[in-house]
Amino acid sequence: MEKIDFHKISHQLEVNSPLVHHITNYVTANDCANCILALGGSPVMADDPEEVEEMVSMSSVLVINLGTLKQRSLRSMRLAGSKANEKGIPVILDPVGAGATSWRTKSAKELLETVSFSFVRGNASEIQCLAGLNGKTRGVETAVGQNLDLRKLALTMATEYKVAVGITGVNDVVSDGKSVYELSNGHPFLTKITGSGCMTTSIIGLFLGAEASPVEAGIAGITTMAVAGELAYEDLVAKDGMGSYRMKLMDHLGTISADILEKRVNIKGGIHHG
Amino acid sequence: MEKIDFHKISHQLEVNSPLVHHITNYVTANDCANCILALGGSPVMADDPEEVEEMVSMSSVLVINLGTLKQRSLRSMRLAGSKANEKGIPVILDPVGAGATSWRTKSAKELLETVSFSFVRGNASEIQCLAGLNGKTRGVETAVGQNLDLRKLALTMATEYKVAVGITGVNDVVSDGKSVYELSNGHPFLTKITGSGCMTTSIIGLFLGAEASPVEAGIAGITTMAVAGELAYEDLVAKDGMGSYRMKLMDHLGTISADILEKRVNIKGGIHHG
Amino acid sequence: MEKIDFHKISHQLEVNSPLVHHITNYVTANDCANCILALGGSPVMADDPEEVEEMVSMSSVLVINLGTLKQRSLRSMRLAGSKANEKGIPVILDPVGAGATSWRTKSAKELLETVSFSFVRGNASEIQCLAGLNGKTRGVETAVGQNLDLRKLALTMATEYKVAVGITGVNDVVSDGKSVYELSNGHPFLTKITGSGCMTTSIIGLFLGAEASPVEAGIAGITTMAVAGELAYEDLVAKDGMGSYRMKLMDHLGTISADILEKRVNIKGGIHHG
Repeated sequence: MEKIDFHKISHQLEVNSPLVHHITNYVTANDCANCILALGGSPVMADDPEEVEEMVSMSSVLVINLGTLKQRSLRSMRLAGSKANEKGIPVILDPVGAGATSWRTKSAKELLETVSFSFVRGNASEIQCLAGLNGKTRGVETAVGQNLDLRKLALTMATEYKVAVGITGVNDVVSDGKSVYELSNGHPFLTKITGSGCMTTSIIGLFLGAEASPVEAGIAGITTMAVAGELAYEDLVAKDGMGSYRMKLMDHLGTISADILEKRVNIKGGIHHG
Repeated sequence: MEKIDFHKISHQLEVNSPLVHHITNYVTANDCANCILALGGSPVMADDPEEVEEMVSMSSVLVINLGTLKQRSLRSMRLAGSKANEKGIPVILDPVGAGATSWRTKSAKELLETVSFSFVRGNASEIQCLAGLNGKTRGVETAVGQNLDLRKLALTMATEYKVAVGITGVNDVVSDGKSVYELSNGHPFLTKITGSGCMTTSIIGLFLGAEASPVEAGIAGITTMAVAGELAYEDLVAKDGMGSYRMKLMDHLGTISADILEKRVNIKGGIHHG
Repeated sequence: MEKIDFHKISHQLEVNSPLVHHITNYVTANDCANCILALGGSPVMADDPEEVEEMVSMSSVLVINLGTLKQRSLRSMRLAGSKANEKGIPVILDPVGAGATSWRTKSAKELLETVSFSFVRGNASEIQCLAGLNGKTRGVETAVGQNLDLRKLALTMATEYKVAVGITGVNDVVSDGKSVYELSNGHPFLTKITGSGCMTTSIIGLFLGAEASPVEAGIAGITTMAVAGELAYEDLVAKDGMGSYRMKLMDHLGTISADILEKRVNIKGGIHHG
């Protein structure tokens, strides 16, 4: 099993303070900006075709998130993605709602074919659909059978698009097409607030911007959100509900340490012997 | 007086877990998504003309909210509204700011004339203006005289557009053109945070998606927000202000039960003998 | 030193309850709306060219914020800015990210040349760049040397564009080209949440809408946010992080009083003898 060195990533984060350029949705943009700031990075949201190439050129990483996708923002995603590739800046895709409408699916696939991504993070149905496995997404939520083999799905997606993949849900899987890791942290309350998926993608992006490898960034990003979600739950007291949970989640994203992550991380996996 | 069966609605919500398609504004979209999740539904925000017809087709209900209205989103509202009508999916309108600018008023009226809505929820001046009664809206806030007859206004609006109507403010009124109900729950702090009106509309939409009748959905939605607003206020302690209030409101939206609503609801009214 | 009369401003706020028209970004629009409400004003966000002239005509003040700038919203800013000038309604500019991309810089300069602003609030690198002093903005964050003379920068900007200027950062400066004031309230945590800059601009706008003079509005707005930031920090308890900080900040924005501001304000400066 690959050893994830949370201290190294934390150190790189502190040294680089990555600038994370988002082309993202208006529902969770505020949450994503705040989690990047809480973890020590600098977020910037800019999505007009007039400026995205110049903005991404000064950034450490580009986060492309398809929530509230528009024709205009899709054009910006193409422009910024190509420019990032040209400059060697990592790009991460969150294919929100792929599989829900044909336009989303087509747009996500087109981006995957024209932009070289370092990472794709989605839920099982989004990834299933992009991997050509008949996924069906309900709105922006997953809608897959219980007995889907997530490890196989991650490997298929990673191989098909030559990209590291993170599938998040009750259990999480990360793969780069050679290795597969299963992650078992988190709490169901994370699915009861909007933005936990988008924030996870942004945090993986932050770690890519801090020069973590795609697999490291995926494992560390998913684990950071999942463990913060556990800690937030443990802090709830009588009468606390989802409003308090969201606040405590952001509290922990700002105070979580490499030591806590190392102690809490629940990971298994390694090189896949196909 | 019609008996509102909160246990039945709560049960339907649990069984259906409605998918609530929003075409809405960027100011309160996050709040609306979170309140739908807290109450057990699934929100999806998608507003590009390329996909709204397909998205609404898989949804339980469509919420059209005119805050931050754009020419492009107006086009999407028309497309999605027509498709929802074709498929028999309920549609609810929040005519935010109708009466403030002529374009908003015209757009709201045009939607009311071309799309068949199950429900319209607005403040008194928005509804007054749509009902042709010389309403004047200040920005997105109500600006009406104290002695306006809300019952009459709701009946007029409901009759004119053949739609169930909810008017919210210091007191709330719901009517389907035959019956009128007055609701007296709530707390003034709800007017000191952005999004309480939009969230109320989304929650009514959620209940419509759970197959409540328009009047049931209106009464239950308004009462849910109003009682959560009371409970949030009761939980405030020294030094708490509007930030804490917002958080506690979301806490209660996630924990409120049919029992609490039944005990707290303050409703009078019934068949109108004009 | 000019005496800032917080009681007078507070009284004017209560009397006028200003309607604050924002053409702003989707990342912090919710925060801006909530802080205006918490302080007793009415926010309205509307940005379509179809209606901005009519909306601004009924407003007390116009806030133009360049975060997530779009070609379409830029057009609306021009239209609304001109109409506000025509009607004598004050306009404030937040040139978010000026200096980061050439389009942002050009757009901000063009607005400054075609619209008459009462106030411009930015960070040091944004203002440096607009004042033609080779500022470099990293994303939407400041990136200036430590030994930059903020007083001189504010005077230069104020003189060049004949506008009152507020530069915020570790220390804050306000100038109208004749006087310069240095403000030393605040807390570093304000830089760890998104929206503190945008909210400061909105609050200055609120005070302009309450008929404070530009210098008064700038000093009072910056001090209100800075002192609320101090009070929020003082209220943090063990385990609280940035989520709690944001909530407590909004709590204090809703409860802060002229008495507290008078006791806490840390200001020096006055007429500049060039």
